[in-house]
Amino acid sequence: MDFVKELLEYVRHASVSTDPAFANGMNGAREKACDLLRRAGLEVEVVPTPLHPIILGRRKGPAEWPHVVLYGHYDVQPAEPLDLWTTPAFEPVVRDGRIWGRGTADNKGPHLVAIVALARLLARHPNLPLRITFLIEGEEEIGSPSFPAFLQAYKQELSEADCVILSDTASPSADQIAITTALRGIVGMEVRLVGPQFDLHSGLHGGAVYNPIQALAEICASLHLPDNTVAVEGFYEGVQQPAEWERAELRKLPLTEAQYLAFLGVDSLHPAPGLSGLEAVRFAPTLEFNGIGGGYQGKGSKTVIPSKVFAKITCRLVPGMNPEDILAKASAAIRARAPKGVKVEIEIKQGNAAYFVCPPGRPNTPKGQNPVLARAFAETECAITGAFGKPPIFVREGGSVPIIEDIRRETGLDSVMIGLFTPESNLHAPDENLDIGMAEKAIKAYESLLEGVAKGGRK
Amino acid sequence: MDFVKELLEYVRHASVSTDPAFANGMNGAREKACDLLRRAGLEVEVVPTPLHPIILGRRKGPAEWPHVVLYGHYDVQPAEPLDLWTTPAFEPVVRDGRIWGRGTADNKGPHLVAIVALARLLARHPNLPLRITFLIEGEEEIGSPSFPAFLQAYKQELSEADCVILSDTASPSADQIAITTALRGIVGMEVRLVGPQFDLHSGLHGGAVYNPIQALAEICASLHLPDNTVAVEGFYEGVQQPAEWERAELRKLPLTEAQYLAFLGVDSLHPAPGLSGLEAVRFAPTLEFNGIGGGYQGKGSKTVIPSKVFAKITCRLVPGMNPEDILAKASAAIRARAPKGVKVEIEIKQGNAAYFVCPPGRPNTPKGQNPVLARAFAETECAITGAFGKPPIFVREGGSVPIIEDIRRETGLDSVMIGLFTPESNLHAPDENLDIGMAEKAIKAYESLLEGVAKGGRK
Repeated sequence: MDFVKELLEYVRHASVSTDPAFANGMNGAREKACDLLRRAGLEVEVVPTPLHPIILGRRKGPAEWPHVVLYGHYDVQPAEPLDLWTTPAFEPVVRDGRIWGRGTADNKGPHLVAIVALARLLARHPNLPLRITFLIEGEEEIGSPSFPAFLQAYKQELSEADCVILSDTASPSADQIAITTALRGIVGMEVRLVGPQFDLHSGLHGGAVYNPIQALAEICASLHLPDNTVAVEGFYEGVQQPAEWERAELRKLPLTEAQYLAFLGVDSLHPAPGLSGLEAVRFAPTLEFNGIGGGYQGKGSKTVIPSKVFAKITCRLVPGMNPEDILAKASAAIRARAPKGVKVEIEIKQGNAAYFVCPPGRPNTPKGQNPVLARAFAETECAITGAFGKPPIFVREGGSVPIIEDIRRETGLDSVMIGLFTPESNLHAPDENLDIGMAEKAIKAYESLLEGVAKGGRK
Repeated sequence: MDFVKELLEYVRHASVSTDPAFANGMNGAREKACDLLRRAGLEVEVVPTPLHPIILGRRKGPAEWPHVVLYGHYDVQPAEPLDLWTTPAFEPVVRDGRIWGRGTADNKGPHLVAIVALARLLARHPNLPLRITFLIEGEEEIGSPSFPAFLQAYKQELSEADCVILSDTASPSADQIAITTALRGIVGMEVRLVGPQFDLHSGLHGGAVYNPIQALAEICASLHLPDNTVAVEGFYEGVQQPAEWERAELRKLPLTEAQYLAFLGVDSLHPAPGLSGLEAVRFAPTLEFNGIGGGYQGKGSKTVIPSKVFAKITCRLVPGMNPEDILAKASAAIRARAPKGVKVEIEIKQGNAAYFVCPPGRPNTPKGQNPVLARAFAETECAITGAFGKPPIFVREGGSVPIIEDIRRETGLDSVMIGLFTPESNLHAPDENLDIGMAEKAIKAYESLLEGVAKGGRK
């Protein structure tokens, strides 16, 4: 199975889960994923959901074989703004040692690494004593709304597995792999303000009505303090600070603040007090504006006072924060700060997730009574060191993989998270790409660690 | 010449001047306007400009005939948001005694009133002793960028005329005509903020960088005080307060604040201190946000920190304010309030205009040495009273007609402004419309007042 050839084909299916216009792309990507799993040697089941089906690829075996759950998602983020792509988002190409296209890094490439590794490993060892459940969902980029019901239906099967291994997190560079020890949670909302019942001529009516853009700007501006903290009452209540070893491990990141500034293209960072920029994206909760829109946005000018405006907001959560609680507090703050003259509507987004900290007993191996999980961590560290010539670092990550915490809550399974994209991968942005050399080394590492887990048995 | 039939044809030409995609509509509307002027009995000249040509329709005659300049514009505002129109913007229909479509009220209907009146008057009085220069431009909705050069080229011809009569202002209702005694000026700018050099994943980078939406919200929020005044240093410097007679005349408006609230669909008004809502839109300067945009605005969610955001801003000016000065002050305030971590770009829009107060010597007739202008005011008052059964009121208006002040500055010509749309006309908004009964009465009034001016001679 050729990684580059298969990924190019996989990425051509424009599987944007958030937009019904991409139904063909979703179907095509799903069929491609099923085909890949079958060719790797797995039995495939497609589980229908109210929205996008979930794929299960299984390798069954006796109960004494270790049972690993692998995870990926075949859906991708929207590709907009399209005009900022060097080559079209869904016409992937190889250039400068990378594959460019939407989904190359998030997440088609990383889970294809595991599929290719599995295919090669099972070709070499047809009788490998390892059970596999390869789970590929299609709603990760919209918060996995169908996942809880799926988890309930498949709870027993999954609970009998030993651990999850997945790659949907970042590493700092193509030769420095990170094992992710925690993820931030996420909650989202869309705030809509309605002022006058229709757009008004700003000459004939300007000066009498509260402009909804002004009201929205005032609300949004009120949500942070000058010290870069979130100005929502009780937002930081119960927040747990990172351990000293976590800060120490993070200092091993091969990235200086100057390099980070250059990468971002900004002249200053704005972390919350007591944190460096590199720490803040991992240790601090946030309230971010992901989109804003209202009034005339076309060429030239149109002198209106708009009737409606909106802002899309997400909060990232750290240990100690509760998703429902943060949504309630942020909604209350927004409603309380809206001026007279505008009406506020708040839509809470599906797919909220708590933070996730895994596993206990870091930095290197988990505590507890699960020998397969402990071996998975040890084999991962060893396999990464072998394939990349450098040991991995164990760090928290700022992103969110909502289903990880769901799985642990419902099935007790912990996850080993191996980062297979880098800051240069442009996740959720134009010119998304994956480093081919990194992926090829990762395939070797996956082969080695799965073989090690299999040979260690269940004790 | 049938008013309704001609207006339906005229409006079908989608003459959106701000968008090059509407070149066909601009050409079609211009040809239609030329045809209408010719059929009314005028000689037509089309004056090329760098953008949209200006139409001149002339009726020449001896120097002792009064010489009136009539004005209109054949371009219209964009029709967005298209989904809020009951029937398509450029497929005009008659419904409930009104003609619905983009441009029916601003300004194709009102200047068609003057054309039809002229056609009927000249049909009855082929030898009427009246000179006409009918000027119809195509860039009013984008600030008339070609008009200054046109004015220079035609300065001598226009300077020899006696006054301007036009209808591009509002009346409070279909049976209460307003003569506009002043217009607000306008200046515009687009503010663009650039943060990180590309869109960032808000999980991987949120907490380290200044979100440009947040920065823009903070800048926009800083531009007003809680008392609804504009928070730009020196904004109100030199502002002249309205005269007591102006407030008294405004109280004749057949519109209560409760009715205005119901019309707008809001539960409160937010005028600057010391002014009612109805006064504020005429007497107070403003800074309004006409549009804002950035980040993901599509369906669902996309967790980005955008690289770029923008806001479109216009200020309305009242007597005592200078356009260049206000632009400089507003730009300086915006630049000074931008946080570190974002870059600010400000594009000043073409087509700024000073306020306009005309004529001196209100309330009813102008002072000064121009007997034709004085007669035009008196005949207008008399003709409106006759056609509508009620005398007009003399009030300031909140909108801006940039070329009016340009004309006076360059040629010395004052303007009689007769309002032929109403608040229900939905100017610059979906479901723009014109009251047919009001237009038919206005045609009679225009016939009568032009006949009166002609017969009064030049002394």
